[in-house]
Amino acid sequence: MAKIIECVPNISEGRRPEITEKCLDVVRNTPGVVLLDSSSDYSHNRSVITFLGSPEGVEEAAVALAKEAAALIDLTKHHGEHPRMGAIDVIPFIPIKEVEMAECVALSKHVAKRIAEESKIPVYLYEESASTPQRVNLAAIRKGQFEGMSEKVKLPEWEPDFGGRTVHPTAGVVAIGARMPLIAFNINLSTSDVEIANRIAKIIRRSSGGFDAVKAIGIMLEDRNIAQVSINMTNFNVTPLYRVLELIKAEAARWGIHVVGTEIVGLTPMRALIDSAEYYMQLENFDANKQVLENHIL
Amino acid sequence: MAKIIECVPNISEGRRPEITEKCLDVVRNTPGVVLLDSSSDYSHNRSVITFLGSPEGVEEAAVALAKEAAALIDLTKHHGEHPRMGAIDVIPFIPIKEVEMAECVALSKHVAKRIAEESKIPVYLYEESASTPQRVNLAAIRKGQFEGMSEKVKLPEWEPDFGGRTVHPTAGVVAIGARMPLIAFNINLSTSDVEIANRIAKIIRRSSGGFDAVKAIGIMLEDRNIAQVSINMTNFNVTPLYRVLELIKAEAARWGIHVVGTEIVGLTPMRALIDSAEYYMQLENFDANKQVLENHIL
Repeated sequence: MAKIIECVPNISEGRRPEITEKCLDVVRNTPGVVLLDSSSDYSHNRSVITFLGSPEGVEEAAVALAKEAAALIDLTKHHGEHPRMGAIDVIPFIPIKEVEMAECVALSKHVAKRIAEESKIPVYLYEESASTPQRVNLAAIRKGQFEGMSEKVKLPEWEPDFGGRTVHPTAGVVAIGARMPLIAFNINLSTSDVEIANRIAKIIRRSSGGFDAVKAIGIMLEDRNIAQVSINMTNFNVTPLYRVLELIKAEAARWGIHVVGTEIVGLTPMRALIDSAEYYMQLENFDANKQVLENHIL
Repeated sequence: MAKIIECVPNISEGRRPEITEKCLDVVRNTPGVVLLDSSSDYSHNRSVITFLGSPEGVEEAAVALAKEAAALIDLTKHHGEHPRMGAIDVIPFIPIKEVEMAECVALSKHVAKRIAEESKIPVYLYEESASTPQRVNLAAIRKGQFEGMSEKVKLPEWEPDFGGRTVHPTAGVVAIGARMPLIAFNINLSTSDVEIANRIAKIIRRSSGGFDAVKAIGIMLEDRNIAQVSINMTNFNVTPLYRVLELIKAEAARWGIHVVGTEIVGLTPMRALIDSAEYYMQLENFDANKQVLENHIL
């Protein structure tokens, strides 16, 4: 019954595999951590690295990765379509098992302090770790990008949380924080009318009055000629997958259509699926921590 | 992505905790193995021990536990309500992760050979490991119990699979084999008429024409005044939980009643619940081995 935290840092390098590999080696060589995935995008010139492990392991891996990225990546020479402000651009910590969000927040602040001290990179805390409401959203912090950071850090409301007002000359600044796991959950409808998917997306997403932890848009799957509600579940504890699915079924019925299938893109915590199994199977008094066999060896 | 096998040996001691603890210590002290549970029944005078781990780990733990049980438990002095034929009575091996049934069968035969040689206990292979159809069912092997084994092993059709025809004087014989995980899955109905639960149980269980991997009876939950279909799922790959639940809903509707809740008693493999989540959520192309985060660290 070990504690497990996930970490999904983004580094500003997606074109030179030899650089990315050196960064991945830092993670691979850190005890207590497992590298799950790395995904590089050429046009973004950015790589998303996913690893998980013990709190101690992910701390060491994150601190070491920041150091390596700062040594290898020079933002004064970086071009890419994705906005960025640092060699290591963002470091989110995600509670997976036997860990409360508060512990991830504390870990993120501890890592932020170490990276500011050991790599001389100023740090903004974001999401659950944010020190002000204006810093919750990563996009607000990153606005101005690397090129604008030297001026931005001087603004009274944008003093970094750690590391002072001197931007690292080549590695910029970094956002560090704790957040829930994201689940990419898409729902396919028995219609080729994308407008219906758009209207349903609007119903379920927070930004237009829907569920608190849901982002959604309607898109067209051209190859299958069906419309899809493409969803980002930002906190499956607050808004569970089955609740979104059932509401979409109910709303779709209003147009005489139904759900033909769903998909989860990429990784999901076991718990998000087991919560849905419990709901649909009407399970009473089920304790996944105790009753799911695999939880005893994680 | 390690291989994981579960082992659920039963020992013929449920009254003297000091003896059971010595047996548990053998498991606890075996590298690569985690002791999950131990449950002793006084009237049965029997304990069920649950552990899991690597193939090598469970092999060593099973062999060592057989040796310890044979040293500590004397069946010539054993009395209890539960039928038994050995100090260690039965040793099932159960594939949990990254392991095929064939590998568990091979492991069970290897362990059988070692226990016969190292502890001088004759072994019958049972369930998936059985050498004849008559030996699939544990009850058939155990018939005659410890007291009758010296005669039984002499019968042409009951020569043990390993260890010859000399029953261990105090430790008797043991059944060893591979089987799927059992899931105790109960379904509560909106009726106090146990006869309906009995009729539904008869519909779903194999012994009266129902699902291949289902055993079921109707029982009355006196404290809640409702009837329950009490089910033993013997292979959730062959007969998944959701299929049984959906058929019961359909059959219950014939009497105008419905399912008010379900329960899983004890442990379940993650996969049995994720299969149900996939079904109810209409998930397309979901690969739990790759997409469930926790599977990468098991």
